[in-house]
Amino acid sequence: MTISFEYEADPQRIEQQSFAIIRELTELSGLSDEQQQVVMRIVHSTGIPELAPQVRFSAAACEAGLRALIKQRPILCDAEMVKQGLTKRMLAEEPLCFLNDPAVPVLAQEHQETRSMAALRFWPPFLSDAIVIIGNAPTVLFRLLEMIQQGAPKPALIIGMPVGFVGAAESKQALWDNHLALGIECITLLGRQGGSAVAASACNALLRCQRGERY
Amino acid sequence: MTISFEYEADPQRIEQQSFAIIRELTELSGLSDEQQQVVMRIVHSTGIPELAPQVRFSAAACEAGLRALIKQRPILCDAEMVKQGLTKRMLAEEPLCFLNDPAVPVLAQEHQETRSMAALRFWPPFLSDAIVIIGNAPTVLFRLLEMIQQGAPKPALIIGMPVGFVGAAESKQALWDNHLALGIECITLLGRQGGSAVAASACNALLRCQRGERY
Repeated sequence: MTISFEYEADPQRIEQQSFAIIRELTELSGLSDEQQQVVMRIVHSTGIPELAPQVRFSAAACEAGLRALIKQRPILCDAEMVKQGLTKRMLAEEPLCFLNDPAVPVLAQEHQETRSMAALRFWPPFLSDAIVIIGNAPTVLFRLLEMIQQGAPKPALIIGMPVGFVGAAESKQALWDNHLALGIECITLLGRQGGSAVAASACNALLRCQRGERY
Repeated sequence: MTISFEYEADPQRIEQQSFAIIRELTELSGLSDEQQQVVMRIVHSTGIPELAPQVRFSAAACEAGLRALIKQRPILCDAEMVKQGLTKRMLAEEPLCFLNDPAVPVLAQEHQETRSMAALRFWPPFLSDAIVIIGNAPTVLFRLLEMIQQGAPKPALIIGMPVGFVGAAESKQALWDNHLALGIECITLLGRQGGSAVAASACNALLRCQRGERY
């Protein structure tokens, strides 16, 4: 028995074809060039063009993100998977994630909070003008909003896209409802869907825009 | 102005609540205990209960995966994100991923193939009775099927869940259509959806089953 498989193995052609299909299937009207790139890359990471209407951008989100990338500001991630999802060759410096710091489980126990929340205790020195990418834990997004309200330095951009059934949709709605009052720029994906790959993909789109790569 | 947020910060309660909601929202009828755990964890990783009907299990997929875990066979991943998505504290040994091996870009160029495919050239010594998790590249799944057809050692289980618009759905359909002829056990998610987090979640469900943790 011989089965033969026909498939495209050229990475450039795969990428070009993917984004041609995504552009055809995705509702992009009313979006700026940069916003379109972000939405298309979110669709690319999930396989779901129907997610497009759930993406929300604050007024100057893409511009703020691009400025922070140009200035090589820190990139803070709530999970190692987010870090791994970022296009490494386009990063000026290694993104920061404190979740696996040996102090984190101890702090989490002590404060009766998730390990993800405990890892945020390391963020304040890096927060000012940073890009924050939250792809995993709703508790991180809630806690960050509280910290900013209580006077923590403001990041340039929050990409807030945790996934799940307990708190994820609520945390993203809270980000969206309060970003103006808190004076923060954000990109979010309303509803339960999200995750590390999705959140990283939004930043990857900005990294490509910054280098003039567009689809 | 003071905004206050109410949210659950206890990780155990978050997990319990999540899976109670997932069980309520997800069509699980006709599935074995282990299959239910896998499907629920896929839903957990995506936020999409509607994906359940797209999951496919070969006849002894969960049993074969559990046996390989007990025997501490290698776990081969197509992407670093898949590795990062596995629940580290439950793993006997570090999973293998060769994508960032310095030889890979050279091999990819030489053979005019994706880097993901080139990384597979390191797999044969580890393939026998291993668990293979493919969350990123359709080309890896196609190439692995070709390798097995050409006589490469057979893994115990293929978790094949690449995501995307070019080749992803086709590669998973090819896995599903040919698994009996090739004599391999597999878990897949038909259609365009998938990804590193989803693929890792299926293995994470088996890791929990092996330890008697069920939801």
